Amino acid sequence: MACLVIHGGAGTMPRASFSAQSYQQARDGLRDALRVGWAMLGKGGLALDAVEAAVAALENHPSFNAGHGAVLNAAGDHELDAAIMDGRDRRAGAIASARAIRNPVIAARRVMEDSDCVLLSASGADAFAREQGLDMVDQDYFTTELRRQHWLRAKEEKAGLLTRARSEAEKHGTVGAVALDNLGNLASATSTGGYTYKRVGRVGDTPVIGAGTYACNGVVAVSCTGLGEYFIRRGTAHDIAARIRYRGDDLASVANAAIAELTEDGCGAGLVAVDAAGNIAMPHNTEGMYRGAIAADGTLSTGIYADDFAVVERLA
Amino acid sequence: MACLVIHGGAGTMPRASFSAQSYQQARDGLRDALRVGWAMLGKGGLALDAVEAAVAALENHPSFNAGHGAVLNAAGDHELDAAIMDGRDRRAGAIASARAIRNPVIAARRVMEDSDCVLLSASGADAFAREQGLDMVDQDYFTTELRRQHWLRAKEEKAGLLTRARSEAEKHGTVGAVALDNLGNLASATSTGGYTYKRVGRVGDTPVIGAGTYACNGVVAVSCTGLGEYFIRRGTAHDIAARIRYRGDDLASVANAAIAELTEDGCGAGLVAVDAAGNIAMPHNTEGMYRGAIAADGTLSTGIYADDFAVVERLA
Repeated sequence: MACLVIHGGAGTMPRASFSAQSYQQARDGLRDALRVGWAMLGKGGLALDAVEAAVAALENHPSFNAGHGAVLNAAGDHELDAAIMDGRDRRAGAIASARAIRNPVIAARRVMEDSDCVLLSASGADAFAREQGLDMVDQDYFTTELRRQHWLRAKEEKAGLLTRARSEAEKHGTVGAVALDNLGNLASATSTGGYTYKRVGRVGDTPVIGAGTYACNGVVAVSCTGLGEYFIRRGTAHDIAARIRYRGDDLASVANAAIAELTEDGCGAGLVAVDAAGNIAMPHNTEGMYRGAIAADGTLSTGIYADDFAVVERLA
Repeated sequence: MACLVIHGGAGTMPRASFSAQSYQQARDGLRDALRVGWAMLGKGGLALDAVEAAVAALENHPSFNAGHGAVLNAAGDHELDAAIMDGRDRRAGAIASARAIRNPVIAARRVMEDSDCVLLSASGADAFAREQGLDMVDQDYFTTELRRQHWLRAKEEKAGLLTRARSEAEKHGTVGAVALDNLGNLASATSTGGYTYKRVGRVGDTPVIGAGTYACNGVVAVSCTGLGEYFIRRGTAHDIAARIRYRGDDLASVANAAIAELTEDGCGAGLVAVDAAGNIAMPHNTEGMYRGAIAADGTLSTGIYADDFAVVERLA
């Protein structure tokens, strides 16, 4: 009955922009994050544990825009957002514009469990994580050579010096996970560096509960990726839950409708969702979305494009 | 057809805690904010202009926990949250944990109109407001003697030195406004200092679009007050809109249902709302809620308790 679905961001990602090595590295990263989350579920762990573990694994992987490998803001710094939500009681925790927390999703869970707050911002988030004894890092930890190149190109674009348009892939991205455990609990987690050259202090949909992250037992768990401002305005994740709860819509139709609305807005968008019956959805309106799923039978699949989503292995 | 509803926070506010002067000061503050917002609507202004003007007036008034008169956080500083949303196109702007912006709601509107962002945090929000040429102030501007006393009492409580329980009134509060203009547009705005002795960096529901603030033409505009963490988890403002939109519920029943759910959570809560037909709601589960409304006929009413909400004057 348990299942786990993850994403590593949606965007325009021309195949030609991937080397064989970087393509395989991303798919391996998705597979490994699924394995880590699934191990939690297999041990009788909660959906909450699974999404935290899977997202932390994606944060640690340089291919994805969260944690190590996060993009740089306009000042050339990293500011990280993350959220987690427990469908059992709709408790939630989130951090926005954090600068020194190695794994933002772990800090988000601590906010949920060890503070009276749901959302902590900026230096307050960093101070809380430090108090909690979480792993703290210098900004350099987050920076990869690829993201530095993306930042330099964004800077050149701002200065009017760029001769070739930047791809979507070098602008943004997000990682996230949703899960259903064997007890019927739903959970969701999301983590991101935002988009390259974002304004200092800009917060996207990721830590806004109901926009990029939402979970409610008996209804749905959702994690979104795309240009967050549009998700905030539509309250996308909560709106998906509301259509299921108040109108009885099925997951596939509401997930597709949410993406269709964001397409109308001109917003590149994707999401992963799982409902209380274990139905999963991974719609996106972009050329690609890093994504992966483990179905109830242990079948692990990953893919980036429409035609490469395929079974990788079957887990016990 | 136009109408305007405001609040200045909900809580347990024993009448005995008011001097005759402070009681009248608060009611006058509500009346004056309504007049300012109504003047906008009367001039053919937008609902958006009216809620911004009314909230800015409440921010400037020392009786309410926003702007001048905001509460102090655990470090003895002010960190201010605000949001505004335009029901015409669901554009929104918000700031969280700002420290130097005289009128946070004005900055929120600038975020909406003059940036690519919806939400800016902390020093990034202050820097943006400074770039925009908004009035910037030292922290002292926000501090009143009353809030300093509340902070000292909260500190004593933390240290186990307090012999008398603090009242809700000295802990939190929020200001907000919703409006319907003559063109049928809805808008909402909310602003707050949070609650006394809040953790540094704590962000409540106010700047979380869909939690404490939401507006969508044809549906509803909502502004909330109370312990924000519960509103974030329930996505209260957006949930009210969803029940109207997806289930056809009437405003009074959904507004009351939202407060009933928060009562179940043990959360002191209130909200103001106006729907597309000009129906208004001001439910709260607390002893009092500072509130005021101008109905379509120009009747201006204010009140704090259940039995003192009364017509003050009739405006042209």
